[in-house]
Amino acid sequence: MTNVKLIVQYDGTRYHGFQRQNNLVTIQSELERAFFSATGEEVVVRGAGRTDAGVHAEGQVASAKLFRLKLPFDRLPVALNAHLAPDIVVTHAAPVPDDFDPRFSALAKTYRYRLFEGSYVSPFWRPYVYQVPADLDLAAMQAAAARLVGRHDFSSFRSAGSSATDPWRTVSRAALDETYVPLAPGREARMLTFTIQADGFLYKMVRNIVGTLLLVGRGKLTPDGFAGVLDARDRTLAGPAAPAKGLCLVGVDYPPGLSA
Amino acid sequence: MTNVKLIVQYDGTRYHGFQRQNNLVTIQSELERAFFSATGEEVVVRGAGRTDAGVHAEGQVASAKLFRLKLPFDRLPVALNAHLAPDIVVTHAAPVPDDFDPRFSALAKTYRYRLFEGSYVSPFWRPYVYQVPADLDLAAMQAAAARLVGRHDFSSFRSAGSSATDPWRTVSRAALDETYVPLAPGREARMLTFTIQADGFLYKMVRNIVGTLLLVGRGKLTPDGFAGVLDARDRTLAGPAAPAKGLCLVGVDYPPGLSA
Repeated sequence: MTNVKLIVQYDGTRYHGFQRQNNLVTIQSELERAFFSATGEEVVVRGAGRTDAGVHAEGQVASAKLFRLKLPFDRLPVALNAHLAPDIVVTHAAPVPDDFDPRFSALAKTYRYRLFEGSYVSPFWRPYVYQVPADLDLAAMQAAAARLVGRHDFSSFRSAGSSATDPWRTVSRAALDETYVPLAPGREARMLTFTIQADGFLYKMVRNIVGTLLLVGRGKLTPDGFAGVLDARDRTLAGPAAPAKGLCLVGVDYPPGLSA
Repeated sequence: MTNVKLIVQYDGTRYHGFQRQNNLVTIQSELERAFFSATGEEVVVRGAGRTDAGVHAEGQVASAKLFRLKLPFDRLPVALNAHLAPDIVVTHAAPVPDDFDPRFSALAKTYRYRLFEGSYVSPFWRPYVYQVPADLDLAAMQAAAARLVGRHDFSSFRSAGSSATDPWRTVSRAALDETYVPLAPGREARMLTFTIQADGFLYKMVRNIVGTLLLVGRGKLTPDGFAGVLDARDRTLAGPAAPAKGLCLVGVDYPPGLSA
């Protein structure tokens, strides 16, 4: 038996999230189908992050246990990609120890959320950003985001449906950066990119955080008020979840021996 | 009557090119439909470049003559975008002199073609690049591309179906640059970006040039051989047209008074 670790990129627009669901097309079901077509084996694919419908990934990590693998590992991406639609791409395959699990072996995961300011968005950005009104208060949003760093009970940012029993998570990085994207001659639009790294995430945690940061950006909540929402451990105080399409799973960190 | 100049961006994947065709969905037909919905006027939309099916644009320029425009110009993009699919976006509208024509008033147009090396392409790049084998000879391709600059008869790079009678065009810029795009941890893929600016282009000229530059990159044609193909004015000597999806109309240049 060989435990294979994959790195997978996908445009989540057309998929009902990562996790297999009856009669719905998901990233997991597509990967399992591709494994069967490419190797003849029925496998269960596990993922590091159970991304929701419409969420994208640049660095999802998945694994599968194979019993009759005849291909060298470096041929596996091409073999799997031949049986996947162009919006899912396996970019890497490597053997890992039998007890490797993409979710439970992970030290940390990093997500990115992109906010695009203005009245219209380039067609090349539109599937990957959430369009918001211009003139958000970036400094206030940055001050609020900084309050996320550290070990907290994130119940205020957990949506119903979460299976986790422990709401404590450690956020190692939470930053909001601005860049400018050309829109038309002499005109640029501001893109705000929120990056968050933690040892784990509750259900819709990033989207709920971004929705609440937007209240700060619009002056409806102060950075201290944002910290108060976090401390209250009460979902009803936070803002609505930001849409899925702005969210992307950037990468997953493992202990050195499992980083292959 | 007001002559309106638009800047339009589109992902050309779903469209049968810019120009209106019976019963096919084109950029022109979509813009004309949006004008009717937004302003109640039946207009003819003209474009600077008649991009083919599948070709993209970051800076297409279009125009339309309106007789009863009631909106201020800066509201027109939002009004038109409300009636367009997300893969076509009007980013700019401004009044221009009555005799402005996006194609015939243009001084130059710039196209970009992206070649992505390797055995797989990120899902976020795939609609906009042509995937090619790794290890193309960049220096030879750059030497060949440089031979395009100047005034030449481009008959060797003109596909059948061109309506132009004069095959002479002046290329002011032809450059091939390499960048590296992250593919997986510790792995990058090389992207070769061909940029060409000229006072006009013959039918499929850029794609035929790129197809022939690829022969140079693969060692099947020397830079001198490439210049020989150009000089021969014989389409049968050039390589096959590169696929549409790698091509993008980047922008159009006009005399200073018409650049608004």
